[in-house]
Amino acid sequence: MPRGELTVVTNKQLEMIDLTDHLQQVVSSIDDGILHVYNPHTTAGLIINEGADPDVQHDILGALGRIIPGNYPYRHSEGNSPAHLMTAVTGSSVTVFIFRGRLRLGAWQRIFFCEFDGPRSRHIWWKTIVG
Amino acid sequence: MPRGELTVVTNKQLEMIDLTDHLQQVVSSIDDGILHVYNPHTTAGLIINEGADPDVQHDILGALGRIIPGNYPYRHSEGNSPAHLMTAVTGSSVTVFIFRGRLRLGAWQRIFFCEFDGPRSRHIWWKTIVG
Amino acid sequence: MPRGELTVVTNKQLEMIDLTDHLQQVVSSIDDGILHVYNPHTTAGLIINEGADPDVQHDILGALGRIIPGNYPYRHSEGNSPAHLMTAVTGSSVTVFIFRGRLRLGAWQRIFFCEFDGPRSRHIWWKTIVG
Repeated sequence: MPRGELTVVTNKQLEMIDLTDHLQQVVSSIDDGILHVYNPHTTAGLIINEGADPDVQHDILGALGRIIPGNYPYRHSEGNSPAHLMTAVTGSSVTVFIFRGRLRLGAWQRIFFCEFDGPRSRHIWWKTIVG
Repeated sequence: MPRGELTVVTNKQLEMIDLTDHLQQVVSSIDDGILHVYNPHTTAGLIINEGADPDVQHDILGALGRIIPGNYPYRHSEGNSPAHLMTAVTGSSVTVFIFRGRLRLGAWQRIFFCEFDGPRSRHIWWKTIVG
Repeated sequence: MPRGELTVVTNKQLEMIDLTDHLQQVVSSIDDGILHVYNPHTTAGLIINEGADPDVQHDILGALGRIIPGNYPYRHSEGNSPAHLMTAVTGSSVTVFIFRGRLRLGAWQRIFFCEFDGPRSRHIWWKTIVG
């Protein structure tokens, strides 16, 4: 199966980075298929959501910081348990269909890498199933 | 790969609509395989959960409205940021196994389209991998 | 497609059980492929997260119990609506790549079955796509 990885360098503690253009390139020769994108980190995630208005990214990250308690009596000594929780609720992979060399995304959808404990250098893995 | 789409017309701001019967039909001739269902919207989602008691749907939608803050200082001018958050935490696709023409769901599981910013006319895409 | 199931016996109301060793065994003869793991229950889930420090599991389960309201005016008469919510936000399946007979997990990642309404006897289904 065609596969690959990409490196994502993040600059903030919480950050969404649009991977769509890169992932579009890796499927450009596939007529019919499926793209799976996998996040190998336990304090980062992948989210498909609106890319047109950057305020949506601000709102997603900010509200996640409200939803996940910052002061639960956490035990994990690294102090980044809220980031582990953000990973747990957003998930470790996304699946997107491919048709005629294009990712089949909705009109407003973009694929984002989500940094929850940055800044760091991160990796994302992808694999395609060709129909 | 076999693929298709269906239209879902929603009637409320928050609503769960059972897609299982329709999706069962599209896999009825597949002996062994996988169904991927994809939601192309950024203010809607897909959830697999209990279908027997409609109160579960009431509780899921109601509690999501408590979990996602309604009054975070959101910036997105369309005013539907909580819906974008609900999409982020529930995810954009579901994967179900197929065996002998049947979706392999648990005893109480049904596949729901989740409207988080309705009423609207929505679309869902599906694709099957035949084993 | 190669497929199978495993039984998980849980001992607590909230519990994370590491399935990685078992799932590693089922992919050991696959050179290139994808593993899908499916949870057929509506009050349990699957999470990929850190396995090195058990405190992370404690923190994930404990914080989920804070995130999901315990006293929302729930209607579902079985009284386990918070467990249905935990399932809705963590999701019903995980996808992991396989390469040279190994699950391609990140350095700290493990695959966990998450009991949200135990103790019970549970089942997990898996299926592999061989490349």
